[in-house]
Amino acid sequence: MSKKFEEKTINTETIYEGKVIDVKIDDVELPNGQTSKRELVEHPGAVAIIAVTEADKIVMVEQYRKALEKSIIEIPAGKLESGEQPEVTARRELEEETGYQAESLDFVVSYYTSPGFANEIIYVFEARGLNEVENKLDGDDDEFVELIEVSIEEALELIRSQRIHDAKTIHAIYYLMQKEG
Amino acid sequence: MSKKFEEKTINTETIYEGKVIDVKIDDVELPNGQTSKRELVEHPGAVAIIAVTEADKIVMVEQYRKALEKSIIEIPAGKLESGEQPEVTARRELEEETGYQAESLDFVVSYYTSPGFANEIIYVFEARGLNEVENKLDGDDDEFVELIEVSIEEALELIRSQRIHDAKTIHAIYYLMQKEG
Repeated sequence: MSKKFEEKTINTETIYEGKVIDVKIDDVELPNGQTSKRELVEHPGAVAIIAVTEADKIVMVEQYRKALEKSIIEIPAGKLESGEQPEVTARRELEEETGYQAESLDFVVSYYTSPGFANEIIYVFEARGLNEVENKLDGDDDEFVELIEVSIEEALELIRSQRIHDAKTIHAIYYLMQKEG
Repeated sequence: MSKKFEEKTINTETIYEGKVIDVKIDDVELPNGQTSKRELVEHPGAVAIIAVTEADKIVMVEQYRKALEKSIIEIPAGKLESGEQPEVTARRELEEETGYQAESLDFVVSYYTSPGFANEIIYVFEARGLNEVENKLDGDDDEFVELIEVSIEEALELIRSQRIHDAKTIHAIYYLMQKEG
């Protein structure tokens, strides 16, 4: 792990502790000895699932995103519970949001979504061998999602029309295109 | 723009107004009539630049990310100034962070980075025909970056070692692989 250009913490102040995010302001010492402030959001981390059906459709969910004030179409995803292994979260979120269980679930990559201000990390999995469960897990009480299954060509059109409009879903589509040549 | 499953705002409270982000808590009415809270981060938006040299190297910068407490290697990026067109920001950030000017700068895609809690949007551009400028623009006083140029193969190795570890840079590499077959 590189610490190049490290910014040492002089002071840290937590200004908000929420249900999902905490917010803190760090005073830092820069590499040149000057000081600055960093506004930082702490997030528990999340998983996202690239799930592909036998018919070669990508499994997605439409949901309203309050931060954007619109609903968008995304690959299934969800936050990590405290201490939970990402693979466990991925299997639960896939079932809750889509009603599918996967025969195989392979880790693809992890990435930070907004390194400039947040520590949110997403662990991405690829799910294959999907089977519909009969009595699926219920999701969160305050989460409303609709299942949508699309081909890669349809997904590319949804990117152009900005109905797909988030980084993890766009990455997933490029990942599948790259994989399938 | 879809409003499916819209969450109507009952009350909104701004709890922090910072230099980069604002934080607000919205009370919302859900589609089933129940209420919930949404913790939301407002961000000015940003640009990122996929810049490729004549020698087919991808232009990157290493910088310390306080939110992650490590330095990572990313494609050049920067925040939008108020009212600024993304293409203007992209040209400025490319020059400030790398010393390059581009003959062509084409819009690739835009995406939200963390739609679950933030409205940060990134406008991605592809820069070609790079020329080093003699007296480059100075960057922000509190920004320390080092220029690194890598091949696609090197970039894939940097993903595996998590020296590249953010969504926009990983997307950029997949975009270039897809484009170049």
